[in-house]
Amino acid sequence: MADLLIKCMAVLTMDGEGDIIHNGEIAVRDDVIYHVGPSGSTPGDFSPERVLDYPRMVALPGFVNCHTHAAMTLFRGYADDLPLMQWLNEKIWPLEALLTQEDIYKGTLLCCAEMIRGGTTTFADMYVDMGRVAQAADESGMRAVLSRGMVGFGSAGEKALAESIEFIKQWYGGAGGRVACMFGPHAPYTCPPEFLKKVIAAAKELDVAIHIHLAETNDEINEINEKYGQTPIALMEETGLFELPVLAAHCVHLNDNDIATLARHRVGIAHNPQSNMKLASGVAPVTRLLEAGAVVGLGTDGASSNNNVDMLEEVRATALLQKLHTGDASALPAYQALYMATAGGARALGMQDQIGRLVNGLKADIILMDMHKPHLYPLFDIYAQIVYAAASADVHTVIINGRVVMENRRVLTLDEDVIMAEAQRCAELLVQRSNIAKKQQ
Amino acid sequence: MADLLIKCMAVLTMDGEGDIIHNGEIAVRDDVIYHVGPSGSTPGDFSPERVLDYPRMVALPGFVNCHTHAAMTLFRGYADDLPLMQWLNEKIWPLEALLTQEDIYKGTLLCCAEMIRGGTTTFADMYVDMGRVAQAADESGMRAVLSRGMVGFGSAGEKALAESIEFIKQWYGGAGGRVACMFGPHAPYTCPPEFLKKVIAAAKELDVAIHIHLAETNDEINEINEKYGQTPIALMEETGLFELPVLAAHCVHLNDNDIATLARHRVGIAHNPQSNMKLASGVAPVTRLLEAGAVVGLGTDGASSNNNVDMLEEVRATALLQKLHTGDASALPAYQALYMATAGGARALGMQDQIGRLVNGLKADIILMDMHKPHLYPLFDIYAQIVYAAASADVHTVIINGRVVMENRRVLTLDEDVIMAEAQRCAELLVQRSNIAKKQQ
Repeated sequence: MADLLIKCMAVLTMDGEGDIIHNGEIAVRDDVIYHVGPSGSTPGDFSPERVLDYPRMVALPGFVNCHTHAAMTLFRGYADDLPLMQWLNEKIWPLEALLTQEDIYKGTLLCCAEMIRGGTTTFADMYVDMGRVAQAADESGMRAVLSRGMVGFGSAGEKALAESIEFIKQWYGGAGGRVACMFGPHAPYTCPPEFLKKVIAAAKELDVAIHIHLAETNDEINEINEKYGQTPIALMEETGLFELPVLAAHCVHLNDNDIATLARHRVGIAHNPQSNMKLASGVAPVTRLLEAGAVVGLGTDGASSNNNVDMLEEVRATALLQKLHTGDASALPAYQALYMATAGGARALGMQDQIGRLVNGLKADIILMDMHKPHLYPLFDIYAQIVYAAASADVHTVIINGRVVMENRRVLTLDEDVIMAEAQRCAELLVQRSNIAKKQQ
Repeated sequence: MADLLIKCMAVLTMDGEGDIIHNGEIAVRDDVIYHVGPSGSTPGDFSPERVLDYPRMVALPGFVNCHTHAAMTLFRGYADDLPLMQWLNEKIWPLEALLTQEDIYKGTLLCCAEMIRGGTTTFADMYVDMGRVAQAADESGMRAVLSRGMVGFGSAGEKALAESIEFIKQWYGGAGGRVACMFGPHAPYTCPPEFLKKVIAAAKELDVAIHIHLAETNDEINEINEKYGQTPIALMEETGLFELPVLAAHCVHLNDNDIATLARHRVGIAHNPQSNMKLASGVAPVTRLLEAGAVVGLGTDGASSNNNVDMLEEVRATALLQKLHTGDASALPAYQALYMATAGGARALGMQDQIGRLVNGLKADIILMDMHKPHLYPLFDIYAQIVYAAASADVHTVIINGRVVMENRRVLTLDEDVIMAEAQRCAELLVQRSNIAKKQQ
């Protein structure tokens, strides 16, 4: 890869509030950040093959999308404004049952194109046919943490676990180190403790983490309480899940004990505010989680409950929702929200030593935001400007693992026109197959 | 003005749910919509001087921003994440006291540039030095409904009322009919009933409506209750305010009687969800207001409590917040949210016979959204796609009063580079003056 020198208006390292290098530069050697400092501070032995000189742009770490189901972009706008169970039973699950491997590949490519355009450089995904997801991530140039979703009942559970082990062995460290893997037991209400214990044993043996949905809805709280007499979080602790590194999506409905448990075990929490709003799930107690020392990142969830994978929208929604929910306009200030989308997300994935901050030695996952737009003037506070005023379309350049994957809003790794056309075709065929299946019932 | 023919993928007339003309066209003659229909249906006597042929775009009515303080873009990012009263007392009011007429003009120009870029074609503004605001609106090509904000205590109130009358006489119907005016008594807690009665008399005499902040915070509810033993809405009814057409911003804290009162008097309500979230004011009961038959439009409020003037963000926030707040994922569906930003907003301003829908005879305020982007594929439902997935950067072309004011994201009426530079300079000088003023205290 060509060595790069990036010169810009400011570098937000996200390595501490106020750690902003005005008139800064970043030297990228191969796939890592070689040097970050003020203009002219790069060691003389660094002779870049390319200089990106953008005095009106701000550099920050690429966004870390801690929870999504990438291929669900194919269902974007297919079913909205429905009660949760009707949405799942009548719309989403029948369509998911008909997905082909090719659909999943094409849907993931579409999602990767969209994520790159919005400044996301790493995503944590849970779905099926993860080999095709990994292939799409590889082609896009993105960094990905992939989990084969498992529903743990009967032989389907055993099959999913075997496929997970196979997928992890095949893909862990793949795509030049850009793909990592986790086990993906879906949720406490779809994976009984005896199945989870098998997953935990396999995860310990392969030394990988676990990605799971936890405490998303009140229905889940009630169901787990009826079955096990405790909260999902307490049940997971008892089952031994938190002996491993865990990435827990949602964590909306938590009592004080749950919050303490999640913080004590350093569980990585993926907060998905827009999905939680759209599905009327509730508001996660993010402010209280952070006060307890919990590790919180942000995610978009799948596009069918969002309906995009725009991390800046999640950043803004996180800050605004916590202010509203706590009744305190000073709650969850801009830096904290941006931290959750970058360095915090990296911690939630257990990747804080690789990504999430712009400091020497970390992977070169860098985005440049163009601040020369009417909605970004005047400029007083860069954090507030990005969190409360900017939009994903302001992301101009995206670098992942030292490679420029988007420049001037053109994705260089993917053919966007082909991807859009094929996604449309896949989606239409899916609906046709679904209509035929309905008639046959 | 050149007669235009717009051909596009679909026309959302917003004249009824499902009223979508696929493969449609709109003929614009001078400042009005001459014909809307399927491709080829325009009468043969119409020979446009220009054809905008965009098969991948969707046409919809320009957004109606029912409540903003345009010049406050100058304070964007100056003070965030503070408790409301500290934000006002220590930051916003000291700066506002130092604003020059030139600042207000330049800040409004910046806001107009941003609004046009986001597809807003009409805005309702309340601020001071409204002549300069009108001048900026005129130059931008936008449609505006302007109110001189009045705090009704003592001689300042009398002066503000006199200035309002003068402003209305000078500007009503100005800018080729694009400027309308209202009286702008600030709020029940800053305008006692005896002052409001004078405003009401003046408004009746000049036959104009009233723009006011109502029931925004719990503090307001408590203060009005302590002073008058009733709610702000009941107090306003008693004072006679609702004998006139009224545009009421916020309406967050309402009891059942208040909701019935607002609906009965057809008060236009400007809902500002992101401002209400950011300032931790609360959630307006929009779903209940609509059920009661109330007229609800959307607004951004000023950029200092938002921090942008992006109507699509407000549309999305409205839908998501009502789903969350009611615990019902089917609440406030996509069409309803989009209606509030267009036809509903026009009704809130009393301008439903002029703007807000794409039907023959109304003013030609039209926006084209480019749907050929990864985040807008696949396309199942155009309303859902725009409300839940699109962004203001997808607005490609903006037509106001028959004139193309933005094309391919270039604002044609304003010099954006000059406006951005001058806004930055105004903002920096303001802060300098503020620092000097503080030292002198």
